[in-house]
Amino acid sequence: MTLALDPTAQDLLFREARTANTFSAEPVTDEQMQAVYDLVKYAPTAFNQSPLRVVLVRSEEARERLVGHMAEGNQAKTRTAPLVAILATDNEFHEELPTLFPHFPQAKDVFFAERPVREQSAQLNGALQAAYFILGLRAAGLAAGPMTGLDFAGVQKEFLDDDHTPLMVVNIGKPGENAWYPRSPRLSYEQVVTTV
Amino acid sequence: MTLALDPTAQDLLFREARTANTFSAEPVTDEQMQAVYDLVKYAPTAFNQSPLRVVLVRSEEARERLVGHMAEGNQAKTRTAPLVAILATDNEFHEELPTLFPHFPQAKDVFFAERPVREQSAQLNGALQAAYFILGLRAAGLAAGPMTGLDFAGVQKEFLDDDHTPLMVVNIGKPGENAWYPRSPRLSYEQVVTTV
Repeated sequence: MTLALDPTAQDLLFREARTANTFSAEPVTDEQMQAVYDLVKYAPTAFNQSPLRVVLVRSEEARERLVGHMAEGNQAKTRTAPLVAILATDNEFHEELPTLFPHFPQAKDVFFAERPVREQSAQLNGALQAAYFILGLRAAGLAAGPMTGLDFAGVQKEFLDDDHTPLMVVNIGKPGENAWYPRSPRLSYEQVVTTV
Repeated sequence: MTLALDPTAQDLLFREARTANTFSAEPVTDEQMQAVYDLVKYAPTAFNQSPLRVVLVRSEEARERLVGHMAEGNQAKTRTAPLVAILATDNEFHEELPTLFPHFPQAKDVFFAERPVREQSAQLNGALQAAYFILGLRAAGLAAGPMTGLDFAGVQKEFLDDDHTPLMVVNIGKPGENAWYPRSPRLSYEQVVTTV
């Protein structure tokens, strides 16, 4: 056994988990979402900057507004998923750094005084957190359906503000009927990893 | 129990795992890296585009070249970690799409004909895969030390080419003495999640 993680957990998070395109009617509770966040919040970001912000779309009215900004192929599943989350970055994350990175509270001004630097850093670190969040949903026994086929400017204008940049929209729930395609091939280790 | 993932696995991946700043002398084998890749390769990317590429820095000579491009505060740990990996994106990932996304092989030309579109998509999806990779290292019982304090242009020129963009450098190994600071605070659920 080369991996320390037990095979059941490997399957739950990686091998058997799949991106769902249909969902059952079973609701996703706030308690589940809190448990997911309280797990994945510990995974690393640069300077512990934690730029990810999440908008849970629960009302029918908000759901319809969001569907209108999704690509056509994503509209049906966005409409029917038990819960939909907009994942975004907070480009003003540096305001929290004196609390989040107490070892070097000056990081806020020394490294992140300029907005373009913050945007770039939030984009990378927010994406890391989006991946932790997807695996956290799987850890809760939920299927995730991450989507980037959407009108980003429209979603930002409708649900966020100038300080928050959308990263993706994620459908969340238990998988429904015919929830996924057959597993697609992956690149081999030799195609991905080189050694110098 | 709100989470399906067992508490031991939660601790291994999230709660007890930490970003290591020092490492023991125990080597990290190619067999371990292959096991990590063969686990995390299944996690999702848009169109299964799988843009992450990994350069394992194993020779003394390559290690010294890399250290020269790291920020001063990252040089000692980059020099002493058992293994160091450069994570990068392949901006020509679309060439593999007919194999990787057989449901819609035209995606290569329909969505990814333009280089700026590919770069942006590879940046987001490569970052997702970097996060999966970090958690995969933890799944192998290894500590990861991801770093973005480095000369990205220098690393690209020294180890990659114009088609590959570095994302981060990761120190890999078993933690050494005084491997980490005390755990820093995290944002509360209420600070991160809103509902509409």
